[in-house]
Amino acid sequence: MNITRPTLLLDEKKMINNLDQMLAKAKATNTELIPHFKTHQSKEIGELYRSRGIKSITVSSVKMAQYFAQNGWKDITVAFPFNCLEIPAVNDLLANGIDLKILVTEKETLERLSSEIKNHLGVMIEIDAGYGRSGVPAADRRKIESLVEIIEATEHLSFYGLYCHSGNTYHVDSRDEIKNIWSAAIQQILDIKDYLGDRNLKIRMGDTPGCSVVDDMLGVDEIGPGNFIFYDLVMNYLNVCDESDIAVAVACPVVAKNESDLRLVVHGGAVHFSKDHLFGDKEQKFFGEMVILTDQGWSSIIPEAKLISVSQEHGIIQVDADTFQEIQVGDVVGVLPIHSCLTANLIKEYHTFDGKIYEHLEKVF
Amino acid sequence: MNITRPTLLLDEKKMINNLDQMLAKAKATNTELIPHFKTHQSKEIGELYRSRGIKSITVSSVKMAQYFAQNGWKDITVAFPFNCLEIPAVNDLLANGIDLKILVTEKETLERLSSEIKNHLGVMIEIDAGYGRSGVPAADRRKIESLVEIIEATEHLSFYGLYCHSGNTYHVDSRDEIKNIWSAAIQQILDIKDYLGDRNLKIRMGDTPGCSVVDDMLGVDEIGPGNFIFYDLVMNYLNVCDESDIAVAVACPVVAKNESDLRLVVHGGAVHFSKDHLFGDKEQKFFGEMVILTDQGWSSIIPEAKLISVSQEHGIIQVDADTFQEIQVGDVVGVLPIHSCLTANLIKEYHTFDGKIYEHLEKVF
Repeated sequence: MNITRPTLLLDEKKMINNLDQMLAKAKATNTELIPHFKTHQSKEIGELYRSRGIKSITVSSVKMAQYFAQNGWKDITVAFPFNCLEIPAVNDLLANGIDLKILVTEKETLERLSSEIKNHLGVMIEIDAGYGRSGVPAADRRKIESLVEIIEATEHLSFYGLYCHSGNTYHVDSRDEIKNIWSAAIQQILDIKDYLGDRNLKIRMGDTPGCSVVDDMLGVDEIGPGNFIFYDLVMNYLNVCDESDIAVAVACPVVAKNESDLRLVVHGGAVHFSKDHLFGDKEQKFFGEMVILTDQGWSSIIPEAKLISVSQEHGIIQVDADTFQEIQVGDVVGVLPIHSCLTANLIKEYHTFDGKIYEHLEKVF
Repeated sequence: MNITRPTLLLDEKKMINNLDQMLAKAKATNTELIPHFKTHQSKEIGELYRSRGIKSITVSSVKMAQYFAQNGWKDITVAFPFNCLEIPAVNDLLANGIDLKILVTEKETLERLSSEIKNHLGVMIEIDAGYGRSGVPAADRRKIESLVEIIEATEHLSFYGLYCHSGNTYHVDSRDEIKNIWSAAIQQILDIKDYLGDRNLKIRMGDTPGCSVVDDMLGVDEIGPGNFIFYDLVMNYLNVCDESDIAVAVACPVVAKNESDLRLVVHGGAVHFSKDHLFGDKEQKFFGEMVILTDQGWSSIIPEAKLISVSQEHGIIQVDADTFQEIQVGDVVGVLPIHSCLTANLIKEYHTFDGKIYEHLEKVF
């Protein structure tokens, strides 16, 4: 591979293994995997899922639904509190035969849908079981019931089920805490299901930490994780994946070395990694960890070799004395991302080790 | 304007005023403005500079140089420690008649250039006068002199001058501190100039805070600020610009309201704003501040209306009780960005209030 600029490398074997593991998890837990495509946003990577039998997918914007609809996907959930300004775009998708599902949390949104939607649309109610980002609070059963009643009474709308993204699993210290968050969330949602009585509804849970770690999903019908396809350092630090499961790395040219403080300057900055970070020992922020690139992949993480600073195009990697001597100006090093979804969204193209280039929605759509 | 999705709005009057102010500053300080185009990365916005007589520009990657070369710019400085893997691309630019200048900090880079460069190339030495990101430390005069000697002895290379980006001006609390940083940096660079003896060289200073605030630039030949064209909340919090100078805002559809904690959920997240943040009272992180959009622009910042959280597509805006009542689901609110360069790089397109759309390199190149 002739790398001259920051380049997003994709290890397909790791990606395929991650997908197969999640499919095995769905099978073992008797749930359906309706994967979130916001992580990769790539038609070619989508085809891998299709080859494994996946027919229904999740996305996080109507734009993403349009892109994947153009690429042959027929059953798409837009897992974002529905933006009613998108009704014309949704009508177009429905007119083209897409089986679309949306999330709703507001009566006003249903009112707008009621007067403007022109074809059958599935509606899920997003439930907030403790994350606090979006969704109707699980305790507000009256509101949930009332939304269901409006949906059922509205032409073209049908009530599909309850959706919960327990994103608070991203902010814990152990796998047990992830399991506890899920267990509490599922219980709240099952209580809502009971409260809603004799209705046919699906329960879908969304986050990668929970979907990766939890073994007991009794009551859950569908899982919609996204990040698992690549994983990243956040997932590694959560012990949700092994370091060796991380399927993407950014190749960064080394442009300067500063011997006095053992730092490498690389081309690889906030326009490649975003500004997501973790904290190392001594509360030092870092934006990625360094690996050595090989012909067919990359090494394990070089101990204490961290991307400690990013500005627009610059990255600064702190290394130890031995590593400093080994790396030369003109070399290309790898950096594992903190958050693979944002990194992919910024670099907008994947390079595989056998020379294929996979597109990303943001480059082409 | 029919806004249905997160959209980057550009107030051209503010942008033009920002440019005219910086041109006036260059005139008053007897320096040449060689603006950094990494902030806007747009051919149409570039034309505004051209209409004001600008012929020489700064960019932060060879890719950006290629884009602006395609759009008629002939004199381009790539203000980044030169990545020698880009020599083939640089040779192409030189072959096409571009007057290119690069920054060098490493002998190894000059060695590679010496054997591979095929046409005349201007070289600046980047000096680190205290920022600590990249550049030869100002105190290392022997290294600087030795780089100059290699440049002068190398066919096709010519020594153009000294470049300094005092990015530490972004991390201070007052305009006086910005001035002090500049004054110390200029003194160090003038000392290097003296040390280098009877050579014809240019001194260029790069950062927006310094270029905006400093009035005494004695000894500086060229200034290369970028961010000033839009400014942003970082610059506003540094007192480098007024809030009313900020020329870009992101239009974000409101998709949900949570009355219990007075929060709005908007479509506008890390894929629109990046994750740059500032800290408000009580050390609360925030990722933007809310304004009310009007037909021809936006209001002043709504007090205490801050974007307090972003995930991939979601943003959460905390507001007071009155504002909460005024904003409805289905409205579109404006959010001023923390860092306009990263926001523009993510949204990749500008919408003006008279209906024009300006491209961004990342969408088209």
